[in-house]
Amino acid sequence: MASSFKPEQARVPPAIQLPTPPISKFMIGLCQLSVTDDKERNILHARTAIVEAAEKGAKLVLLPEIWNSPYSNDSFPVYAEDIDAGFDKSPSTAMLSEVARLLKVTIIGGSIPERSGDKLYNTCCVFGTDGELKAKHRKLHLFDIDVPGEFSFMESDTLTAGETPTIVDTEVGRIGIGICHDIRFQELAMLYAARGAHLLCYPGAFNMTTGALLWELLQRARAMDNQVR
Amino acid sequence: MASSFKPEQARVPPAIQLPTPPISKFMIGLCQLSVTDDKERNILHARTAIVEAAEKGAKLVLLPEIWNSPYSNDSFPVYAEDIDAGFDKSPSTAMLSEVARLLKVTIIGGSIPERSGDKLYNTCCVFGTDGELKAKHRKLHLFDIDVPGEFSFMESDTLTAGETPTIVDTEVGRIGIGICHDIRFQELAMLYAARGAHLLCYPGAFNMTTGALLWELLQRARAMDNQVR
Repeated sequence: MASSFKPEQARVPPAIQLPTPPISKFMIGLCQLSVTDDKERNILHARTAIVEAAEKGAKLVLLPEIWNSPYSNDSFPVYAEDIDAGFDKSPSTAMLSEVARLLKVTIIGGSIPERSGDKLYNTCCVFGTDGELKAKHRKLHLFDIDVPGEFSFMESDTLTAGETPTIVDTEVGRIGIGICHDIRFQELAMLYAARGAHLLCYPGAFNMTTGALLWELLQRARAMDNQVR
Repeated sequence: MASSFKPEQARVPPAIQLPTPPISKFMIGLCQLSVTDDKERNILHARTAIVEAAEKGAKLVLLPEIWNSPYSNDSFPVYAEDIDAGFDKSPSTAMLSEVARLLKVTIIGGSIPERSGDKLYNTCCVFGTDGELKAKHRKLHLFDIDVPGEFSFMESDTLTAGETPTIVDTEVGRIGIGICHDIRFQELAMLYAARGAHLLCYPGAFNMTTGALLWELLQRARAMDNQVR
């Protein structure tokens, strides 16, 4: 009995050819930051860390998830910034733009709470070496956890999930962006790899109980399965 | 600007609901076999291992990849059996059927070289507790490796790749089958999980140089990403 299924056609069109990265080897600076309830201090602290990373030779600098605000549903609305309204309304991204241009580094700016109309997002901004905002990624997979009697935290109480994947061409190559729990979903990484990403970046803020074990496996799995860094 | 993309529809239809496994907890017997160039001896050796596993309480018994033949392109045509021609033409699967029925165990029969017309496949047969052949999986992703000056082995020199995924309902639940290199491809595991598999089984034969590191990561990644065993 002949089947109408043609397996060779299931792979058409093929994945997009991987572009050659503009520079083949570069240093990445991963900034880990403690956050206080003083936003101005958080911004200054992040700026200092970015400068230190650049001085040590990093061409790409990453910040963690929610670096300008405490990680709580009470804080998100208070610390949120309207990124689309311009740097005057968003001191956190204004700093990232200024320091990216000054130091000529690409910055994947972790994330901050973003206010857009009547909604809040968990948003990552990517800045090029010219200080321009090159991409904005809104966390796609909010982290809602409820272990009855033990622990409950619902990001969706205050935040709205983003709707689109984010892939961005930078001076250090084509990068796929996710935020924290986005890494749990293999489809996103597959999509980025098929679109020619060299590197996947997932700024995160996670607990230390299950965090190290889970993240080591998740990162190695994404890198192996999709042959990216 | 309104987008025509409706993210909520991208998840419709949803993945198939996971069926309740018929038994919730059972023992699996993993038989590791040394193979000789004497097929009759290989069959007897495998039978002894299956009996031992069942006597120790295993309800599901697995054999490794190519357990009735040396692992070489010279051997595959010589040791190949025409499985579809019936047990008279296939002493290896005849033994699996007989011992599955006798011991009332489910057997995922590793794989043997299968002759079908003028083609050879690397084929896994699954037998139910009644001794019936429940599924036949032909390796989808042949392993061709060529490290110039060091090592070269091309399964595709003699073997033909299978064309379809294999998922089978057994007395111990719904199982997705792959053979060795099939595990490298996340899409297959995702497909099995979306179709309600509780368990993925990948009989393999791999080298000990990179094997342990690679297989540990591959197996943990598939289990985590797809929430299966």
